[in-house]
Amino acid sequence: MNAKLKWLREKMKMLDMQGMIVTNPVNIRYLTGIVAEGILLITRKENIFLTDGRYVEEVNSILTIDDEIIVHQFQDFSKEEYENFFLFCENVGFEEDYVTYSQYKQYMHQYKVNNLQETEKAIEKQRMIKDEEEIEKITKACEITDECFSHLLKFIKVGQTEKEIAFEIQKFFQMHGAEGNSFDSIVASGSNSSKPHAVPTDRKIDLGDPITLDFGCVYKGYCSDMTRTIFVGYVPEEIKPVYDLVLKNQLQTLKELKDGANIKVISRMVENDFKLHGYDLVHSLGHGVGLDIHEYPYLHGKNDSFLKEKMVVTDEPGIYIPGKFGVRIEDTVLITKSGCINLTKSDKNYIVVEGK
Amino acid sequence: MNAKLKWLREKMKMLDMQGMIVTNPVNIRYLTGIVAEGILLITRKENIFLTDGRYVEEVNSILTIDDEIIVHQFQDFSKEEYENFFLFCENVGFEEDYVTYSQYKQYMHQYKVNNLQETEKAIEKQRMIKDEEEIEKITKACEITDECFSHLLKFIKVGQTEKEIAFEIQKFFQMHGAEGNSFDSIVASGSNSSKPHAVPTDRKIDLGDPITLDFGCVYKGYCSDMTRTIFVGYVPEEIKPVYDLVLKNQLQTLKELKDGANIKVISRMVENDFKLHGYDLVHSLGHGVGLDIHEYPYLHGKNDSFLKEKMVVTDEPGIYIPGKFGVRIEDTVLITKSGCINLTKSDKNYIVVEGK
Repeated sequence: MNAKLKWLREKMKMLDMQGMIVTNPVNIRYLTGIVAEGILLITRKENIFLTDGRYVEEVNSILTIDDEIIVHQFQDFSKEEYENFFLFCENVGFEEDYVTYSQYKQYMHQYKVNNLQETEKAIEKQRMIKDEEEIEKITKACEITDECFSHLLKFIKVGQTEKEIAFEIQKFFQMHGAEGNSFDSIVASGSNSSKPHAVPTDRKIDLGDPITLDFGCVYKGYCSDMTRTIFVGYVPEEIKPVYDLVLKNQLQTLKELKDGANIKVISRMVENDFKLHGYDLVHSLGHGVGLDIHEYPYLHGKNDSFLKEKMVVTDEPGIYIPGKFGVRIEDTVLITKSGCINLTKSDKNYIVVEGK
Repeated sequence: MNAKLKWLREKMKMLDMQGMIVTNPVNIRYLTGIVAEGILLITRKENIFLTDGRYVEEVNSILTIDDEIIVHQFQDFSKEEYENFFLFCENVGFEEDYVTYSQYKQYMHQYKVNNLQETEKAIEKQRMIKDEEEIEKITKACEITDECFSHLLKFIKVGQTEKEIAFEIQKFFQMHGAEGNSFDSIVASGSNSSKPHAVPTDRKIDLGDPITLDFGCVYKGYCSDMTRTIFVGYVPEEIKPVYDLVLKNQLQTLKELKDGANIKVISRMVENDFKLHGYDLVHSLGHGVGLDIHEYPYLHGKNDSFLKEKMVVTDEPGIYIPGKFGVRIEDTVLITKSGCINLTKSDKNYIVVEGK
């Protein structure tokens, strides 16, 4: 049995759970490596992956006897056999934040479990701490993202639309070893950059535009996330002080990110410096990155918890002047005992593309 | 109030519901036209859309006084005001197939409702019957899909990868008025075509390849869906009888699709003809298309219900010879009183691209 499944069985003991139904496919992938529709049952005796006929062959091909995971088709079992999976289990865990109310009722009925117990995102919380293999995959995803950014600096030209640039990002990722985007890229030019969550439009790039590029890829299931605000032709004078303030806070945050640091304190530091200059931090300072693009821990001023070694988080302060422009600078970093390692290594000083 | 919200209020009366919480964003879009994160409360007195600060301005800009929808921010209300929304409501509906168990508990607590009542996909079922505006949007999505297919016949060349072709599809859609793909395109060449749900790979197109192209776009929120299996250079003799059998059944199904037709009977007809020739229909014959790419009704041999005028469904029989090749032919059609109107009009006879 792998270390992650062993962890889960230990956790279940601590929670006095004799069984668990894992439904969230990201959690199933985390625990087993399996990427397929199905459901993972942790019973007293076995780890069972239930799936449909389409996936059995493929799933079995990636598992070895050491995994101690048995694969079955849903229809392999009778009503009675379903009811026996959790026989005499007083508490069976389920993922209350993922399972719909209908599924919850179906589980109670199908497995004849009277006490389905909430697991309070136990697996999602464990996913915060990455092992070596996970860190390698995220590091590789960040490398491809840096390469994509270098490519974009040569690619971007006056007259292209935001959509065309968003396309180029996706194409680059798929052609350079990534599975695809980790989220829909943001390419926000000119005044569109004032919207933190802008969607690429048909607006054409022009001289003097700021362009906020927020993008990342998926490598072997793991995500990267990076943002740069770049400039076409020259850096407009009115944007410089805002850019400088965002960059100063992004770098200051990088210095603070380390094992044991309090998330609230770091986030408030940026909020206060922004306020001092008349701006607000309108979104959170960062988030965890892993199999999901947004996962625990969330870095904002209300999170009074502490960073830990081997977490991977973003550092992404931004300032947005409605109707005018915006600046956001974001890296994905690995938390260590003494600080953090920046996994996205692209330049952060004024970046000007010629655009011709 | 628009016709769809009026329908919902009538439906609620029939179900003896005094209030409803609509959470599924597709259902909210259907009922209100609103595309934003938030929740729709149907109370005795009002229709209320609760959202966060990012969306208020945009949502208000698309609503008129005739919509009779009031937009508020979540934080506009105190604990007591939340509890008053459904005061003295005996039954408040919720979407048990969309709402997680956690949300369900939160709703009970926040709105102080003791009886949250399951609505059994009432809105999803109503969405089966399209109005004129919805039909126009789907028709337009299908037109763009046909244009994309014509483009692909000129674009596809020996030596291109499946991924490159999948890209071209996406690019075409985004550059020709669609919002994007309605699902991840399937581009399955050579023996990859034997997998019904193949994902585009780096395999290069070769002479003699069949290529199954399954793709569609989104236009103003509404989807299209079409599949053609085409050939590069020539049609291999061994594939012809399978192609002919699939096409015969696809055309026969088109003749049967009309108001009042029994879904099970139509599906069994294809299953039986395939069996007669030694093949199985391994996936369902079709599905509804609308705001979701897959929605009610589902066309398979166990669905004993009837087609109705103004439903939009796919007709997509396929045969797959493991390790060798596959053929699928799919149209999106509108059900009418006397038959159906095929909205995807691309050729279905042997289609051979030169590929040079």
